[in-house]
Amino acid sequence: MSREEEIQLLTDFVTDIARDSGEIALKYFRSDLKVENKQSDGKFDPVTLADTEIEAFLRDKISAKYPGHSIVGEEEGETRGSEPFKWFIDPIDGTRGFVAGSPMWGTLVGVMENDLCVAGVMNQPFLNETFVGSETGAFLINNQGKKQIKCSETEKISDAVLCCTHLSMFHTGKALDRFVRIAESCRFSRFGTDCYGYGMLAHGFVDLIVESSLKSFDIMALIPIVEAAGGVVSNWQGDSVAMGGDVVAAATPALHEQALKFLSA
Amino acid sequence: MSREEEIQLLTDFVTDIARDSGEIALKYFRSDLKVENKQSDGKFDPVTLADTEIEAFLRDKISAKYPGHSIVGEEEGETRGSEPFKWFIDPIDGTRGFVAGSPMWGTLVGVMENDLCVAGVMNQPFLNETFVGSETGAFLINNQGKKQIKCSETEKISDAVLCCTHLSMFHTGKALDRFVRIAESCRFSRFGTDCYGYGMLAHGFVDLIVESSLKSFDIMALIPIVEAAGGVVSNWQGDSVAMGGDVVAAATPALHEQALKFLSA
Repeated sequence: MSREEEIQLLTDFVTDIARDSGEIALKYFRSDLKVENKQSDGKFDPVTLADTEIEAFLRDKISAKYPGHSIVGEEEGETRGSEPFKWFIDPIDGTRGFVAGSPMWGTLVGVMENDLCVAGVMNQPFLNETFVGSETGAFLINNQGKKQIKCSETEKISDAVLCCTHLSMFHTGKALDRFVRIAESCRFSRFGTDCYGYGMLAHGFVDLIVESSLKSFDIMALIPIVEAAGGVVSNWQGDSVAMGGDVVAAATPALHEQALKFLSA
Repeated sequence: MSREEEIQLLTDFVTDIARDSGEIALKYFRSDLKVENKQSDGKFDPVTLADTEIEAFLRDKISAKYPGHSIVGEEEGETRGSEPFKWFIDPIDGTRGFVAGSPMWGTLVGVMENDLCVAGVMNQPFLNETFVGSETGAFLINNQGKKQIKCSETEKISDAVLCCTHLSMFHTGKALDRFVRIAESCRFSRFGTDCYGYGMLAHGFVDLIVESSLKSFDIMALIPIVEAAGGVVSNWQGDSVAMGGDVVAAATPALHEQALKFLSA
């Protein structure tokens, strides 16, 4: 099998299992949720039945198909395999949006081969929207079918629509100051976006995302989607953010470069 | 015709025209938008073709059916009629969400009889969701049909899911301080919600909304929806906010009362 065929098969598999998991999410979305509290200090961090069931479903599918691959998930941590492939699962990214009844959440499934982000999917089953990215391209699958998507051509910070999930992401005054400076320079900012903002970035409606303190499973799956759509994703120093950290994702290399100046200053 | 029948007919009419306007919104959502700039000082305030067309469509429908009613709309200002009924239209509430490709926007149509908020509708055509409120009850119409909705029973600020569109709403340091104090006391806060947050409040997933500087057409149509679902909507002093101002909307009277203490202190 050629490398291209392998990537295509892998991308299709990620897409299929992410979409299939949507049924579980919808069973719990806007129903009475059993919200547990993961943290002992009383800060809010919901674990829903949806989270647990979706991750178990995806782990089963992946390990049945690729028994030698490693898997990292939000709920169950890391399972190590012998091959250089590692999967990253966030069963419900945007749990707070999910709890609030908003559709701004998604299921993230991504796979890396060594340091390379090979394929990633963000599935939003309430909207029946699936964002897919790999070397085969960036696509949106929805009720109208499957279409290629691409980032906007926005190059100037002052023209950029900026997204960010919540200001509470910025754990230091310095990080918050940097965010505020770039936000004030943008066309406008929009909060409460979680993974969905990255879908809109790949689709050309959002130009820039600046976030902080993300985990690997919050961001890895989104990188191939944005990159295949022509965008650039890195940490605030310009290095890979696949393993988590402070994220800057931009529609164009020029916009990314300007954003880095704000964020590393 | 009895008062009840009159209200039912009026509510059905508001629902029908709001839903019919959805086609116009969808023609422009996630397409290339002609964004004009209403303000001469260069601040971002988008006017889309959708805004203009939807308001014209709704004004035509209302004035054909009720030629003696007054109409207030975001785009065209006020048209005065001879009867004590006044309509309030926000063709796209949440324009920034609309521009960013997010579904967190809606079309608002409400009607008052003197000081009474008689009926209101929030239509979200991308989700095919319509939130309706009047003396006949609070309802959500979607792909599954029409069902009655109600606010949560949350009574404590510490249990409340709080929504707000954007911190930039708070134009004074004092208003912002008050918001931050209540936000820090809630279970969690979520931004970027616009009118959709009020739908989620009426549906029982959001418990509290605190916003500032809203216009009459941003809030009037939402009041009957929240009230018919059992919630309470007022300004920060506890008075009617139908004509705009600083809004606090709560799932229960007890929660509303506690929120007022934070906001008027």
